[in-house]
Amino acid sequence: MPQKVVLAYSGGLDTSVAIQWLKDQGYSVIACCLDVGEGKDLDFVKSKAIQVGAEKSVVIDAKKEFAAEYALVALQSHALYEGKYPLVSALSRPLIAKKLVEVAEQEGAVAVAHGCTGKGNDQVRFEVSIKALNPDLQVLAPVREWGWSREEEIDYAAKNNIPIPIDLDNPFSIDQNLWGRSNECGVLEDPWAAPPEAAYDLTNGLENTPDKPDYIEIEFENGTPVKLNDQYLSLEEIIEQLNKVAGKHGVGRIDHIENRLIGIKSREVYECPAAITLIKAHKELEDLTLVKEVAHFKPVIEQKLCEVIYNGLWFSPLTKALQGFLAETQKNVAGTVRVKLFKGHAIVEGRKSPYSLYNEKLATYTTEDAFNHQSSVGFIELWGLPTAVHSAVHQKGKVNV
Amino acid sequence: MPQKVVLAYSGGLDTSVAIQWLKDQGYSVIACCLDVGEGKDLDFVKSKAIQVGAEKSVVIDAKKEFAAEYALVALQSHALYEGKYPLVSALSRPLIAKKLVEVAEQEGAVAVAHGCTGKGNDQVRFEVSIKALNPDLQVLAPVREWGWSREEEIDYAAKNNIPIPIDLDNPFSIDQNLWGRSNECGVLEDPWAAPPEAAYDLTNGLENTPDKPDYIEIEFENGTPVKLNDQYLSLEEIIEQLNKVAGKHGVGRIDHIENRLIGIKSREVYECPAAITLIKAHKELEDLTLVKEVAHFKPVIEQKLCEVIYNGLWFSPLTKALQGFLAETQKNVAGTVRVKLFKGHAIVEGRKSPYSLYNEKLATYTTEDAFNHQSSVGFIELWGLPTAVHSAVHQKGKVNV
Amino acid sequence: MPQKVVLAYSGGLDTSVAIQWLKDQGYSVIACCLDVGEGKDLDFVKSKAIQVGAEKSVVIDAKKEFAAEYALVALQSHALYEGKYPLVSALSRPLIAKKLVEVAEQEGAVAVAHGCTGKGNDQVRFEVSIKALNPDLQVLAPVREWGWSREEEIDYAAKNNIPIPIDLDNPFSIDQNLWGRSNECGVLEDPWAAPPEAAYDLTNGLENTPDKPDYIEIEFENGTPVKLNDQYLSLEEIIEQLNKVAGKHGVGRIDHIENRLIGIKSREVYECPAAITLIKAHKELEDLTLVKEVAHFKPVIEQKLCEVIYNGLWFSPLTKALQGFLAETQKNVAGTVRVKLFKGHAIVEGRKSPYSLYNEKLATYTTEDAFNHQSSVGFIELWGLPTAVHSAVHQKGKVNV
Amino acid sequence: MPQKVVLAYSGGLDTSVAIQWLKDQGYSVIACCLDVGEGKDLDFVKSKAIQVGAEKSVVIDAKKEFAAEYALVALQSHALYEGKYPLVSALSRPLIAKKLVEVAEQEGAVAVAHGCTGKGNDQVRFEVSIKALNPDLQVLAPVREWGWSREEEIDYAAKNNIPIPIDLDNPFSIDQNLWGRSNECGVLEDPWAAPPEAAYDLTNGLENTPDKPDYIEIEFENGTPVKLNDQYLSLEEIIEQLNKVAGKHGVGRIDHIENRLIGIKSREVYECPAAITLIKAHKELEDLTLVKEVAHFKPVIEQKLCEVIYNGLWFSPLTKALQGFLAETQKNVAGTVRVKLFKGHAIVEGRKSPYSLYNEKLATYTTEDAFNHQSSVGFIELWGLPTAVHSAVHQKGKVNV
Repeated sequence: MPQKVVLAYSGGLDTSVAIQWLKDQGYSVIACCLDVGEGKDLDFVKSKAIQVGAEKSVVIDAKKEFAAEYALVALQSHALYEGKYPLVSALSRPLIAKKLVEVAEQEGAVAVAHGCTGKGNDQVRFEVSIKALNPDLQVLAPVREWGWSREEEIDYAAKNNIPIPIDLDNPFSIDQNLWGRSNECGVLEDPWAAPPEAAYDLTNGLENTPDKPDYIEIEFENGTPVKLNDQYLSLEEIIEQLNKVAGKHGVGRIDHIENRLIGIKSREVYECPAAITLIKAHKELEDLTLVKEVAHFKPVIEQKLCEVIYNGLWFSPLTKALQGFLAETQKNVAGTVRVKLFKGHAIVEGRKSPYSLYNEKLATYTTEDAFNHQSSVGFIELWGLPTAVHSAVHQKGKVNV
Repeated sequence: MPQKVVLAYSGGLDTSVAIQWLKDQGYSVIACCLDVGEGKDLDFVKSKAIQVGAEKSVVIDAKKEFAAEYALVALQSHALYEGKYPLVSALSRPLIAKKLVEVAEQEGAVAVAHGCTGKGNDQVRFEVSIKALNPDLQVLAPVREWGWSREEEIDYAAKNNIPIPIDLDNPFSIDQNLWGRSNECGVLEDPWAAPPEAAYDLTNGLENTPDKPDYIEIEFENGTPVKLNDQYLSLEEIIEQLNKVAGKHGVGRIDHIENRLIGIKSREVYECPAAITLIKAHKELEDLTLVKEVAHFKPVIEQKLCEVIYNGLWFSPLTKALQGFLAETQKNVAGTVRVKLFKGHAIVEGRKSPYSLYNEKLATYTTEDAFNHQSSVGFIELWGLPTAVHSAVHQKGKVNV
Repeated sequence: MPQKVVLAYSGGLDTSVAIQWLKDQGYSVIACCLDVGEGKDLDFVKSKAIQVGAEKSVVIDAKKEFAAEYALVALQSHALYEGKYPLVSALSRPLIAKKLVEVAEQEGAVAVAHGCTGKGNDQVRFEVSIKALNPDLQVLAPVREWGWSREEEIDYAAKNNIPIPIDLDNPFSIDQNLWGRSNECGVLEDPWAAPPEAAYDLTNGLENTPDKPDYIEIEFENGTPVKLNDQYLSLEEIIEQLNKVAGKHGVGRIDHIENRLIGIKSREVYECPAAITLIKAHKELEDLTLVKEVAHFKPVIEQKLCEVIYNGLWFSPLTKALQGFLAETQKNVAGTVRVKLFKGHAIVEGRKSPYSLYNEKLATYTTEDAFNHQSSVGFIELWGLPTAVHSAVHQKGKVNV
Repeated sequence: MPQKVVLAYSGGLDTSVAIQWLKDQGYSVIACCLDVGEGKDLDFVKSKAIQVGAEKSVVIDAKKEFAAEYALVALQSHALYEGKYPLVSALSRPLIAKKLVEVAEQEGAVAVAHGCTGKGNDQVRFEVSIKALNPDLQVLAPVREWGWSREEEIDYAAKNNIPIPIDLDNPFSIDQNLWGRSNECGVLEDPWAAPPEAAYDLTNGLENTPDKPDYIEIEFENGTPVKLNDQYLSLEEIIEQLNKVAGKHGVGRIDHIENRLIGIKSREVYECPAAITLIKAHKELEDLTLVKEVAHFKPVIEQKLCEVIYNGLWFSPLTKALQGFLAETQKNVAGTVRVKLFKGHAIVEGRKSPYSLYNEKLATYTTEDAFNHQSSVGFIELWGLPTAVHSAVHQKGKVNV
């Protein structure tokens, strides 16, 4: 009896060919398609897997888990790799790996396979995650292994009755989930060229956005969005609705020359209407509710967490430890943020919180002022003392305080 | 003969009253007005100082020095305090302090005075800077010291024939220089309220921006903007032109709940059209020209430098050491960035450089691909090895590689 | 009826005088002496407080709480301020503040008082902690307020029948608890002078240590020492025993030119036999059990936590968040460490753990080697790729991979 | 005519066999032996290379360059990887690579070869450095490539008349230079076992150290040791002398469970008498001369620089940028440090500097006190304000300042 392999199946040409190629190697293939919000026709994908040779085809709706356990971490840590990229694919890979391993264990498979090439980040994320979750499973990377040109792949597909997609000359390479959409290749490879409108799908171009803003209110509890415009919704639903309304206003286009883990620079275009809107809103609520020391140190944690996730180490113990810090900071991030969506902007116009640390009586310049101005005299003297001593020593050769 | 004090003079009510108040204390007052690009009528300010009682009145044009030695550091370090505030006033204070000390030394003054209250950051920046530059000079802070209410101050002014400004009920407190404009107080003290249009001066509201974009090209050498649209200009001129054109498109409005050094949260509104445009363009050129390791560590330096400047420690030796790092990174930040100014956005659409580290042959997914995909197999194995060993130990009680 | 104040009472001259001084201000004084392991005669201290005028005298044994909730955090975070000082007093101050506040709330006091001068760190730690725990309580600092010279203080004491200690000319100023002993002043104020033997109390000088080592074994669970030489003990007991045996061998002397929070450099001498021994042992167990990524990032948390505690912010939410990270890392820090105590050294000679990530089969150079040497080829190629591309661009003007 | 390869030659079995093996591949071999202070018989090594088949044999004395440009950076950055390892081999590899590339360019060689296996850090350091310096040179790693067992290697040596070293059963694998000596393998592979005395060579065991201390004085200028005991010496000479005298007292033994770049933990034993003595002395002088802000941020730079060097990225632009920071900090690190060498300790007993920022008048508790104690009141109030506001909000539901 052939050994089983669980393949991360997308319905596209590469993974369809991979089914046949894995069969050539003697495996029985279980195709597994994860729905993390890419908006595909899952029935079609499911049956296509069987059609091109899979022994079994599984579709798993992981949208809720993706929102609650992956996207939420990215939101609360304001994760923007290199200040720009909201970790779209980097977030879904560990979840997909987890589901593949679960299926492999249920089915008694000996291996898990993914369709990544040898020069992206996703191969790292899949393989490190799978090894972390079950070191006994083999990992196969058919596309990286066969090393075919496009023409050779099409030849092989034709010979094996694998349908060739009609949009084969689509110049873009897309990945999408609830947290956004990434796009690379084609004309984008020239960093001097502007991305063409065809590169975008979730957002209107600025020229085509409405001339009237939308105003939304997002309510947070424990750092988690719980209400949109006064309606309790799951995070998954909030993200979906925001992708629509913020996308309509052109929010969340990102054009990024990016340093991949595997050592090269690539040019990527992202669209993340909900992610950008939520990160902005959440940051503003933190500005109101986090004490200064936490606000100033949290970015160190954020940057590390972002790097760890980008680099495929979601299942490293470091991720958990960083989340230990993060969780503590979110306990009082509660309140409401009012956002104006307009012309590509998600502008936070107002924020309020039962735990607001902003104190008008301390901040005001009116007669209500409760701040002790004389305290500043002593503060400044001691704050500047090291600099003053240094200046005295170096200008005069002696301390002259 | 009375002892001399050099007062940082703005022409406004507070510092006009301070001249008289200092005279009451027995000083002879030298008013000193620095032009760092706030666009004031300097002749008026100069003669007003004499009119309200100064012995001498000095106006110093420090715009070029401000651009070249202060704003440039903020630009190259992408300085945004708490991710938002481009350090407008924080940058000018050390320069103003330096000029005040220079005048004080020339004039044989025993003290320097500033018009700050006791609860802002600027008092710290002035006092620490002055002490650093000349520890023998006394620092006076008349406004903080007298502690008058608005009414008491106006009474005193009236009694002393100090003109009361006609816009005395202006609810805002403004500071401005080449790098931007800051605004606090009044209605802004409620963080739930949106800033009114009247709070802004350098930028059009989104509703009033042109419906056609402007495209500009900025050329950098050694990390410094040297050309705008193919014309060689000084940095001061580039900033001035960008403030106009980017301001016209509504670029650079910032609404910030901010943690002040002296321990309170305040709400500030900033407008920085040129600063935001230049920081975005410069960052994109770095994305193209900095090697990954530098790109990933530079933010640590940036954050520290920003914090040090915000906190009034420009003349601390730490600032110089951080600049030592910064200068090394800028040597190859050269090239051209194309920016689309439109609807409040400064969108970098293209970037090119003679030192570009982006290599299409490595990045491409076409047949031109020069990247060795098989190298990834070994890379991933070793990259994930700590995680794999950890999983093996913790799931199975033994290492099973 | 007079208002009550709770005074942190040590039994020394300063706080004895403070009792009377507070009575002069109209307060009824409740003396409160905390035992955090300084080895004082507590009965004597308790009755002396009454003798010099306190209304009530309370002694609280807080050793167990100090060990389990304060020293343990310092141990697990290897807290050494500026790489040297194990936070002795910095750790006890927040606990003492907490107990003072508890007593104040029980007794209905309106204020809490401490005996610190105006130039140490401890005043900050006390006052910030007290304000954090009960912002309604006033904080009094009699010694800082009265500003007397030594002679004036003695005069006052004499007039008020406060006994003058016989060791009044003791040139040192000591603070001590389970985690160590600090000493400042006197001859130590000259940084070129070696500390005299008289400055030390817990440790033998190297010249007087035994010529035979002691070998001890410390067992940890969850990052916490639980056994010493195969005997289950509380952390408090382990620290006490280690202070003796490691002190006998001269372990833990520290001579530190230190930057205080309040802006000056001071010279301090510390003795921390148990602390240094435990930190070394714990670090070695982490070297064995923490995955590389955690081991390399934990120092960032450690440094911040140490700084926060040193700076008096134990009750800041930042401390809790940092502990959230710390706690996650300690879950698998379990095992046994063998330490040789000899001639001032605590040398870790062996370490073992059920969760050891050290894998002889991967590490060995024998034929047992399970490491795939060929994986290194791909790893090195990608690891060095950014540097190689940079060199190619800058040496040749073009990428030549 | 055969193509030339430059081989890093040590005189040991591996690189002797590599000469023949490279000849088998058709190369003409130029053996190149670098002297970075390992104390070898270089004449013997030079002639042995020819004897075992090299076309040409070169010996380069690089000790001065190693001390001045590599060890000095490690000293000034207090480089201790994972808090323990002073970067012995990690420092010499880039210098050796540089010399190999220089010879290769002079000789018209097409390749450079090193004798590292596939699981150490040194292969990475060599290969990344060589690629950085001359991307056109090939890098060969014969030992990694041939993959022989010890027996197979000896067989090959015997067949090719390559002398088998008499200490072939030496269980240790050693690398040594001015900055120290590293040792791995054999009994050391068990982390519970204490390293045997035979593992050490530069240092006396504590049991065998003199019973009288040596006192030395080290003078620094610009952060660089320039005098030892009042005698001007080159850094190379200072290191050599300190290795002897500090080694005699047993200073600098290190036993380290270490995380290698290539993903495994290994156990290493180091001896670095001079390095540890100099780092301690230098740190103490910095404690006296660096302003607090620099002292507190420099460790971030130190840790990164150490990591970058350990990881083989000496020739990355990041190293230069970090050195830009470092150089600025060293300008005033001047003065004299008195060190007591005794029983494995390098104890700094005194330090003095013309640029000392330690000010007895500020630090003292005597009547000389120049510090304004009242300034602390204001300082503490503002320092603790965020914590106080946070407590007020969270305990009472409202701000109550």
